[in-house]
Amino acid sequence: MRHLDAELSQLKEKLLAMGGAVEKSVEHATQALLLRDLSRFKEVYALEAEINRSHVEVDNACVNLLARQSPMAADLRLIIAVIKINADLERMGDQAVNISHNGEYYLAWPELKPLVDIPIMAERVRVMVRAALDAFVKLDEKQAQLVLECDDEVDQLKQKIFLDLLGVMKQSPENVERGLNLILVARNLERIGDHATNIAEDVIFALNGVDIRHRGIARP
Amino acid sequence: MRHLDAELSQLKEKLLAMGGAVEKSVEHATQALLLRDLSRFKEVYALEAEINRSHVEVDNACVNLLARQSPMAADLRLIIAVIKINADLERMGDQAVNISHNGEYYLAWPELKPLVDIPIMAERVRVMVRAALDAFVKLDEKQAQLVLECDDEVDQLKQKIFLDLLGVMKQSPENVERGLNLILVARNLERIGDHATNIAEDVIFALNGVDIRHRGIARP
Repeated sequence: MRHLDAELSQLKEKLLAMGGAVEKSVEHATQALLLRDLSRFKEVYALEAEINRSHVEVDNACVNLLARQSPMAADLRLIIAVIKINADLERMGDQAVNISHNGEYYLAWPELKPLVDIPIMAERVRVMVRAALDAFVKLDEKQAQLVLECDDEVDQLKQKIFLDLLGVMKQSPENVERGLNLILVARNLERIGDHATNIAEDVIFALNGVDIRHRGIARP
Repeated sequence: MRHLDAELSQLKEKLLAMGGAVEKSVEHATQALLLRDLSRFKEVYALEAEINRSHVEVDNACVNLLARQSPMAADLRLIIAVIKINADLERMGDQAVNISHNGEYYLAWPELKPLVDIPIMAERVRVMVRAALDAFVKLDEKQAQLVLECDDEVDQLKQKIFLDLLGVMKQSPENVERGLNLILVARNLERIGDHATNIAEDVIFALNGVDIRHRGIARP
């Protein structure tokens, strides 16, 4: 086994450990909200510190590896993918923190409504994150494609949650704050799904050097 | 002059051209909203296509340069910084598109209120984006530090806008949609400021190899 291979597999493990922490963080943030269990937000803040440390470590390891080994082709693409995935994971961690902030406000009030479709959306996003990390571990293009396909469904769920909550907010001025908090949580979840999509795209790039972002470029 | 230097300066120019397009896009999106001029949103969508193309080009140029030149130390750090800044610029472009979507909804209704502090916030964010790009062109650490200092002020402005708009939304159910649209615009602007902050951090990293993210790690 080349020395570089050993270093690359160490790097992947480091990134995966970070991915695991991010997954847990998202899980705690959403469960805190769904179960009205404030103690779980503390876990999110503790995990954030861990995620931030890993973020810096992974970046440094990549720069080091590039400098010492001057990797080529597939190895080079993998390291660049790790740099990008690392940034996405760190921002997913930030979104879990944002969910916690919004959730803490929300839980200070009596329950508004059974959270409309937020539990379903949270579950879908959790599956996306897991699948994106899986695609990275196995460098599996099919799995990565599955993640991309989930993104539309998550967007539709968010749209529906927005409309439902707008209706609730209009019923009474008392509902406005809580409705807004939940809308912001739905946005945080959507962004986590977006980052999972970015990770899937980076996996595909690492695999075949094809950049699939912005295909069929003309959005609206 | 080393061949690598020529290629690096080409790469910087490419990234700066992209930065210019992003700046214009943010400017059009916010001016459209402030002047109630729908035609400017079209400019945002046209610029998005251009930004997406540049995004792919800059990434490819970086991978190419790393593969062919195996750069070391400061050169390597600069290229890694370009990869990260490229990702941030692309996402700033996405936020300009989001402002446009929210703005189009908003402008379909009569004016809600003189937009609370959104014009001021938009101006502050514009200055941050300009300063971050300047810091990158000149590789100027002081300038990069200035960007970091702006971030708190922008966050405070967003907080104030949120509170003002919550008040407006509670006054009447008719205000709820428009208030929410403006809250989302304030969030989009905040995120553009966050990306400018990321760019400033990457400039500092490129300059001295010190990673200043997550300093004094214990956030809340």
